[in-house]
Amino acid sequence: MNPGRFHHMAVIGVGLLGGSLALAARKRGLVERVIGVGRTRKNLDLALSRNLVDEVATDPAVAVSAADLVVLAGPLGTFRDTVKRIRSRLRKGTVVTDVGSVKGNLVSEIESLVPAGVAYVAGHPITGGSVSGAGHARADLFVGTRCVLTPTASTPVEALVRVEQFWHELGADVVRMAPDIHDRVFAYVSHLPHLVSYALMDCVGEQNGHVQNAGKGLMDTTRIAGSPPEIWSDIFRMNRDYLLESLSNFQEALDAMRRALEDDNEQMLKALLRKAKEVRDRLEQG
Amino acid sequence: MNPGRFHHMAVIGVGLLGGSLALAARKRGLVERVIGVGRTRKNLDLALSRNLVDEVATDPAVAVSAADLVVLAGPLGTFRDTVKRIRSRLRKGTVVTDVGSVKGNLVSEIESLVPAGVAYVAGHPITGGSVSGAGHARADLFVGTRCVLTPTASTPVEALVRVEQFWHELGADVVRMAPDIHDRVFAYVSHLPHLVSYALMDCVGEQNGHVQNAGKGLMDTTRIAGSPPEIWSDIFRMNRDYLLESLSNFQEALDAMRRALEDDNEQMLKALLRKAKEVRDRLEQG
Repeated sequence: MNPGRFHHMAVIGVGLLGGSLALAARKRGLVERVIGVGRTRKNLDLALSRNLVDEVATDPAVAVSAADLVVLAGPLGTFRDTVKRIRSRLRKGTVVTDVGSVKGNLVSEIESLVPAGVAYVAGHPITGGSVSGAGHARADLFVGTRCVLTPTASTPVEALVRVEQFWHELGADVVRMAPDIHDRVFAYVSHLPHLVSYALMDCVGEQNGHVQNAGKGLMDTTRIAGSPPEIWSDIFRMNRDYLLESLSNFQEALDAMRRALEDDNEQMLKALLRKAKEVRDRLEQG
Repeated sequence: MNPGRFHHMAVIGVGLLGGSLALAARKRGLVERVIGVGRTRKNLDLALSRNLVDEVATDPAVAVSAADLVVLAGPLGTFRDTVKRIRSRLRKGTVVTDVGSVKGNLVSEIESLVPAGVAYVAGHPITGGSVSGAGHARADLFVGTRCVLTPTASTPVEALVRVEQFWHELGADVVRMAPDIHDRVFAYVSHLPHLVSYALMDCVGEQNGHVQNAGKGLMDTTRIAGSPPEIWSDIFRMNRDYLLESLSNFQEALDAMRRALEDDNEQMLKALLRKAKEVRDRLEQG
């Protein structure tokens, strides 16, 4: 039997990620049935009408009772309470996973909450962007993207392999990373850029009428400032220590630029820009 | 006669902007003949082989002697010296314009350098991006973009109208702005985002191996860090005062984020993110 296949998947939170996951898993035959859990009837109706899920529910405890795969896909700040609500209804052998952008303490907390015989495998698909909601869900969202799993010493290997295979079948490149390393890496490559983009938009937006003259540069650098504030304030707060560390380093990089400008130090200024362009050009080449 | 048409155009600097301008003007029949001026034979050969220009030269003084339209399209830092080199060869009635990203003192300096009977109309097409060179030039680069002209009290109205019509025929939306206002506006909407993007790439690039995990967010925010360091260090230095002002405001916006994080002030953090998203959503709607 293919270890990446499950019978009943419960997706708690049918937004961009949860909705896409439900659709993709069904289309690829990785699950027989998907139940989507949400708080608002409107989004659940949308998920049903777009055929993302087979059925819907508003109570996660009811939804997980028949599931052998449970995916936490709501806001990061709700994971702990959700697990508390569903834990007594989880069946032995069930695998619980998530799509959250911050791991840290949450992994050990959820590990300690799930009952014996239930495995928790923390995950983070690197995708998303500035759109959100079931209306933007699509079956190919994870194709060619990276999915980071953050197992610990307590993670049952069999369940880890199953979740790995599940993401692999959805088209993702799966990598393993320690939860702590994950949080530090994504503070720099994701959370800091979001914070910077929001701050830049705040700063430029305060200058009356200036934004009318925005070119492609400002549009690119502030695209992710259109991301949902509720989701990102959760992420920022849950990864606070590493985010503050990366912010300090970024503020030092800005100060280096400021000094080069103030001193009209052309050589230093060019050196800073060249160093950045080198990294960027390597990124572009993949 | 169409005021936007000229006989001989000399384009000094056949990079992305100069090359595209040459190609577009010829394709639309706005000029009869274009001579491209460059420093390296390699780029001039590319311009010829791509059919961007009719002929090429390495000496701008020779190139402008038959021109009734001269476009300064090389690096911003070369404009003053270029005008000094060509001024004695400019014919009466010739219009000199440019595509530089910073105006400020340069406008009055060039105005004082051009001989009587020659008009200078400063311009700035809002386009470009992270690619550069004649190899990327294309005829539709200016279609649907904005072109800012920054006339002064000394600008002859007839020449201003001709340059306006010229850009209009290339598909650009032309607006007029005082040189000083232009520099302040573009410090915020273009130069600061570039500086921020370079600084972000410097900061993240210093963390070994982290960039391998870059998602779309980091790619978007650092796209313009791939822009040519030589061009952008010139722009930063020439618009230093307004850029430093905008940088101070940006650093304050970052500090506000930092305080909200340090105090774990969820309300403040969400308010800052929501304010940014509102501006961004309005930009997206155009």
